[in-house]
Amino acid sequence: MTKPAISRFPVPEISEMPDDIRTRILAVQEKSGFVPNVFLTLAHRPEEFRAFFAYHDALMDKPGPISKAEREMIVVATSNINQCQYCVVAHGAILRIRAKNPLIADQVAVNYRKADITDRQKAMLDFAMKVSLRAHEVGDADLETLKGHGFTDEDAWDIAAISAFFGMSNRLANVTSMRPNDEFFAMGR
Amino acid sequence: MTKPAISRFPVPEISEMPDDIRTRILAVQEKSGFVPNVFLTLAHRPEEFRAFFAYHDALMDKPGPISKAEREMIVVATSNINQCQYCVVAHGAILRIRAKNPLIADQVAVNYRKADITDRQKAMLDFAMKVSLRAHEVGDADLETLKGHGFTDEDAWDIAAISAFFGMSNRLANVTSMRPNDEFFAMGR
Amino acid sequence: MTKPAISRFPVPEISEMPDDIRTRILAVQEKSGFVPNVFLTLAHRPEEFRAFFAYHDALMDKPGPISKAEREMIVVATSNINQCQYCVVAHGAILRIRAKNPLIADQVAVNYRKADITDRQKAMLDFAMKVSLRAHEVGDADLETLKGHGFTDEDAWDIAAISAFFGMSNRLANVTSMRPNDEFFAMGR
Amino acid sequence: MTKPAISRFPVPEISEMPDDIRTRILAVQEKSGFVPNVFLTLAHRPEEFRAFFAYHDALMDKPGPISKAEREMIVVATSNINQCQYCVVAHGAILRIRAKNPLIADQVAVNYRKADITDRQKAMLDFAMKVSLRAHEVGDADLETLKGHGFTDEDAWDIAAISAFFGMSNRLANVTSMRPNDEFFAMGR
Amino acid sequence: MTKPAISRFPVPEISEMPDDIRTRILAVQEKSGFVPNVFLTLAHRPEEFRAFFAYHDALMDKPGPISKAEREMIVVATSNINQCQYCVVAHGAILRIRAKNPLIADQVAVNYRKADITDRQKAMLDFAMKVSLRAHEVGDADLETLKGHGFTDEDAWDIAAISAFFGMSNRLANVTSMRPNDEFFAMGR
Amino acid sequence: MTKPAISRFPVPEISEMPDDIRTRILAVQEKSGFVPNVFLTLAHRPEEFRAFFAYHDALMDKPGPISKAEREMIVVATSNINQCQYCVVAHGAILRIRAKNPLIADQVAVNYRKADITDRQKAMLDFAMKVSLRAHEVGDADLETLKGHGFTDEDAWDIAAISAFFGMSNRLANVTSMRPNDEFFAMGR
Repeated sequence: MTKPAISRFPVPEISEMPDDIRTRILAVQEKSGFVPNVFLTLAHRPEEFRAFFAYHDALMDKPGPISKAEREMIVVATSNINQCQYCVVAHGAILRIRAKNPLIADQVAVNYRKADITDRQKAMLDFAMKVSLRAHEVGDADLETLKGHGFTDEDAWDIAAISAFFGMSNRLANVTSMRPNDEFFAMGR
Repeated sequence: MTKPAISRFPVPEISEMPDDIRTRILAVQEKSGFVPNVFLTLAHRPEEFRAFFAYHDALMDKPGPISKAEREMIVVATSNINQCQYCVVAHGAILRIRAKNPLIADQVAVNYRKADITDRQKAMLDFAMKVSLRAHEVGDADLETLKGHGFTDEDAWDIAAISAFFGMSNRLANVTSMRPNDEFFAMGR
Repeated sequence: MTKPAISRFPVPEISEMPDDIRTRILAVQEKSGFVPNVFLTLAHRPEEFRAFFAYHDALMDKPGPISKAEREMIVVATSNINQCQYCVVAHGAILRIRAKNPLIADQVAVNYRKADITDRQKAMLDFAMKVSLRAHEVGDADLETLKGHGFTDEDAWDIAAISAFFGMSNRLANVTSMRPNDEFFAMGR
Repeated sequence: MTKPAISRFPVPEISEMPDDIRTRILAVQEKSGFVPNVFLTLAHRPEEFRAFFAYHDALMDKPGPISKAEREMIVVATSNINQCQYCVVAHGAILRIRAKNPLIADQVAVNYRKADITDRQKAMLDFAMKVSLRAHEVGDADLETLKGHGFTDEDAWDIAAISAFFGMSNRLANVTSMRPNDEFFAMGR
Repeated sequence: MTKPAISRFPVPEISEMPDDIRTRILAVQEKSGFVPNVFLTLAHRPEEFRAFFAYHDALMDKPGPISKAEREMIVVATSNINQCQYCVVAHGAILRIRAKNPLIADQVAVNYRKADITDRQKAMLDFAMKVSLRAHEVGDADLETLKGHGFTDEDAWDIAAISAFFGMSNRLANVTSMRPNDEFFAMGR
Repeated sequence: MTKPAISRFPVPEISEMPDDIRTRILAVQEKSGFVPNVFLTLAHRPEEFRAFFAYHDALMDKPGPISKAEREMIVVATSNINQCQYCVVAHGAILRIRAKNPLIADQVAVNYRKADITDRQKAMLDFAMKVSLRAHEVGDADLETLKGHGFTDEDAWDIAAISAFFGMSNRLANVTSMRPNDEFFAMGR
């Protein structure tokens, strides 16, 4: 049986990639034990690959009051609203690991209002959903609501930027038919 | 720590349930090793419990050309569109087991168009989605499309009835805040 | 001229139906003077017929603070949102009779916010519409709003279950092209 | 008991209306036996009254291949999509009378795809619905489809203009809380 | 190069139009320096032309607390929601001129919540948007909100009627493929 | 009078920015005569600024069969669907300049189906809209349609990536309340 395609587009061999991209991919492989397909799919476009991951890292690896697990909650909730299989499965795995909670990813993906998360986290996700679905209606009242849960304006930027960035990723993954690696499905469960 | 609530509504003790309901629940418990919370939640209303499971069994245990795994695909895709955490998690587990495929439930839940399923199964889910989202527009052309994939009119009824029945279940589970049992999350992975 | 079809699917002769189904249908015929087509359409599937009407009766014939006419209001408003001709016409007739009001069914079907009903009834229908259209967003605040109008949690279950059950019926009626009997159109006017 | 209000806005006495408006209203009263509330509601704004009915008459009384009953079908289907109680009830009555068919108005209002109408009439209503819901997407292909059912470009203008005009009426009736006269509910049944 | 078509439908020569229509068109031409294509497009249907402009004038030339520039804001915001190129471009020009502000039309068209307008004007446009998108949900609370910004019930009628009338115009312009005159694009900038 | 705010968030002084960002901004200022506010708004977050513009340049400055003007068409159409004032106004200006056509930006923004563009360009924008609104439904048939207009798979990636990237930008601009510079409104007209 042939292995299912990773992407609708050509996927370069790791050996043929530009040095910086190959280096990053090999580092991920060493750490995770496999290469997530988003790296292989986007490597088809090296310039876009570099910008995508620079943006990703700026948003997701940033220290601050919103924890790394919480950032992944935003990714997972946003990605299910956008029906992006790759992102729900891959970031669901990361969320389980970061939150050390095997149940949380599926809960947050399907309906975060019923998830085992705090009211503050639900308010964070309410805002992320509004950014994804009706950003043109976001206004002062939304930032006030966030403040009532202890989120600063800088936190609001973070939430919005993560939701917006993964809205982009979701669209790219759906158009490229990016396939989640089999490894992600069971990670952290 | 207190255990999280199973339902927004009172949940009867198994010992206090009517005989037929207790018997069914104990049989499920013996087979599965635990009692799925849908049984406990709906037991609050014995008449509705009986009708619900009679309907469920008529649709889901029926022999025919649509396999049991395929029936669960309809449930899982419908339930994620309706953002029903209980149904995606519980029936995702059943789908994994029936299809003997640890990846399929998450694939079908998030975007069945990208799942490792046949074109016939995608056509089945396209129809189920139309029934869930725009049943008033269903017409002869939809049944013709199904026929092109080998589905008879009786199969169309099955698909539609499963999608419609779980559309009801999804709404009930969301209103009752029915909690998926922890056991479901890892089953069949 | 041939009579228009009752259903897209085969309709059994009453004489060929299982005893319990024939008995129920003959009882309805005796009481109403005709057999509503939902009975004939669903008799094509005896198991589903039994479960459907058991569920229907559990929800619609139940005593309680929500009157039978009010239950029919939920059916009529839900069914028009779902563009289900059979259910609006048939339950519109029943609503007119139960409410002894020839105007109320059309008012509630098209826009219950403008109907000659109480604020309590409008709140009941607001909740039923939320269950039909956005059940995943139903939360504590909705039940509090209902309480402000005198509805208990048990009443909320009733409203939600009726809206959800008829959401299922609406989808089945649209897929089967179930035809409302001519008799319903003028009943109770 | 006080009579329910006709409109959220002041309604002038017929005796105090400008001559041309009073004359028109008295003529309608003589013909119909009552004054439809749309005349009384809009008489609050004489200039708008005159323009509204001039437009109405230009569209609805025009001779041509689309019959008067068919024009009312467009009104009824459009008005239910827009949840306008006044227009569904009042024009439902007119449709029953013009089509000499007591069933047709309720059929067309709730789901014209299931109504006892011709394929040509369904194509007409498909186009009217597209004009109401997604006019920005109307293009050459839609007019070609209409031509396949014998409708000329001039007919397409008629259908679109009726759907657009009643889209306006529906919004006005909903904002003014215009009440359908009791007489309309049973007319033509 | 041939000039692009003004309308999908036949456009009469000015010399062949009925006197009253030709007179109005020549007056507009004298004042504006060109004939806006809405006049030429609608002149194909003289009766509808007369009613359309009578209605337009009744709503747009009426004195009152809502200024002429504010009325154009309603037109521009409504027309962009309805994706009507003619109305956004033509009334954008008029708005710039009436408001003596070269930026305001583009701001209001794309997202009035971010425009350089007062809170009162934003409330006016919130209401106009609700009339365009969900008039069936308009109720007392909306008029109370308007009152909090100094708008009377009569003002609410004006706002609603302008939004509803241009909702009709938008649909007509999209169906007729009415082309905005080149002159409008730069006027008032 | 105080100048209106550029952003809801703090905007750094150019003199205080990191060297690379200051250098880029000064280069833009020299070329354009002013600093577009997107640079100042995003400079609040230098890491995100760098990634954003690297991504932007990779997509928008790339040579290939889709011209720079056509890329701006995608931006403008996407941004109006997302109701992003900054992006419609700023990229509308760039589109006018790149296409050397003072009318095209407003035409494409409001309804590209009626714009003075080729059928190939309309197909490109149809696909961009599907990516923005329903990327989860994108499939082989969409790429086939594009091929019928001469677009390769690589072109499809470009269109999708531009639509997805600006979907992100639109959300960021709406959340930050990014203000389009006054200069953009009249550029290229």
